[in-house]
Amino acid sequence: MLTAHTIKILQSLDRKKFRQKYNLFLVEGNKNIRELFSSEYKINEIFSINPTELDFPEANILEISARELKKISFLQHPKDSVAVCEIKGNTFLENCAIQLILDGIQDPGNMGTIIRLADWFGIEQIICSEDTVDFYNPKVIQASMGSFTRVNIVYQNLKEVLENSINVNLGTDMSGENIYTFPFPEKINLLLGNEGNGIRPETEQLLHHKITIPRFGNHQSTESLNVSMAAGIILGQIFSKKSP
Amino acid sequence: MLTAHTIKILQSLDRKKFRQKYNLFLVEGNKNIRELFSSEYKINEIFSINPTELDFPEANILEISARELKKISFLQHPKDSVAVCEIKGNTFLENCAIQLILDGIQDPGNMGTIIRLADWFGIEQIICSEDTVDFYNPKVIQASMGSFTRVNIVYQNLKEVLENSINVNLGTDMSGENIYTFPFPEKINLLLGNEGNGIRPETEQLLHHKITIPRFGNHQSTESLNVSMAAGIILGQIFSKKSP
Repeated sequence: MLTAHTIKILQSLDRKKFRQKYNLFLVEGNKNIRELFSSEYKINEIFSINPTELDFPEANILEISARELKKISFLQHPKDSVAVCEIKGNTFLENCAIQLILDGIQDPGNMGTIIRLADWFGIEQIICSEDTVDFYNPKVIQASMGSFTRVNIVYQNLKEVLENSINVNLGTDMSGENIYTFPFPEKINLLLGNEGNGIRPETEQLLHHKITIPRFGNHQSTESLNVSMAAGIILGQIFSKKSP
Repeated sequence: MLTAHTIKILQSLDRKKFRQKYNLFLVEGNKNIRELFSSEYKINEIFSINPTELDFPEANILEISARELKKISFLQHPKDSVAVCEIKGNTFLENCAIQLILDGIQDPGNMGTIIRLADWFGIEQIICSEDTVDFYNPKVIQASMGSFTRVNIVYQNLKEVLENSINVNLGTDMSGENIYTFPFPEKINLLLGNEGNGIRPETEQLLHHKITIPRFGNHQSTESLNVSMAAGIILGQIFSKKSP
């Protein structure tokens, strides 16, 4: 049985402040939890309504009721299990050929989708400005579908990173070069800006090139593409040149 | 003031059954409502907490309180206005060069994102299987951000459409041809399948080619891309050949 104290701690983990205080975060659902088994993340405990379904002897798995699960889950429709994991201090990787640089991404769903994209394209590192949403946020973890275990995500001063990187800094802009004809270099920092405000001026100054996804529809009022969709289409173009 | 009867009718419009009964659907937020002004949709009434902000004399705009807005809005954080619009019978367009064909898409967010993509790429028509989520669903309308006014969306028997179309039927498959080397034809029906089950076997039989977005990450457990993201990356490739 879960004590009131444990429930209170777990419930507090939807806030960054408490994740940092306890150095813990939650991963929900057996499918996502199984991804942890092959990762470097340390699992402290797993609370499950079906402990036998998680075949992993090394883990400390406790059976709980559906009612208890509901109390500790952050999902509207709780799944089967919740794993309590330790936050891992990621180290900055030097010399990644293609990196994503997030300049103030705020929406957890976008962040999760971008992590999934990075995983799909084999991008090893995502570098985030310090005000980008915390990737240990339960909504990011959920949206990333286990991909957060396979991509190195670090929070840095972007100005320093971009000034010292040997990669070419590319960012999207309404009046940039056409991605379909732009000669993408080998080593790229692809910058993705905040949902409402885009890339901030201090960061924009450090771009080597601005690129644009051309719009083929001829309606001026068409909204620009969502940031994660734009990232997917641009990565598609970058990797189209790398295809065997 | 809104009568209890009006509130009841408006609240019922989150269900397809009642949208069809009353032949009505809702559009929320001034930004999206303004898109209606230049569309063929007929607005019956607009309920707004700031009627003066919607500068459109032809519309019947009624001032309501924030409290009333909360009652009729389907959003967690209601915006400024709700427009009550008439459902429009869309007619099938013959001879669209590139069409999206949705085979049982269920998630309103995906459907909305796909409509937005179609609008961006200037795709005139989306043809949906009869079990695809209703695009008048408030969550689809919201996610499409006004793009539903610029794309012709029809519900059809897909078997008949695909058998009679002169376009080449393309669908995604894990073991299909690489999208980066596949020679895309001029006239395409791009099929997008259900989130969990993909394209159904009866539809799959009618495909001329199966295509794949290659995965560059080398982790077998990486989840396949979400259907709307896959659509965006494939459309990016198709249109890369059409770029000036």
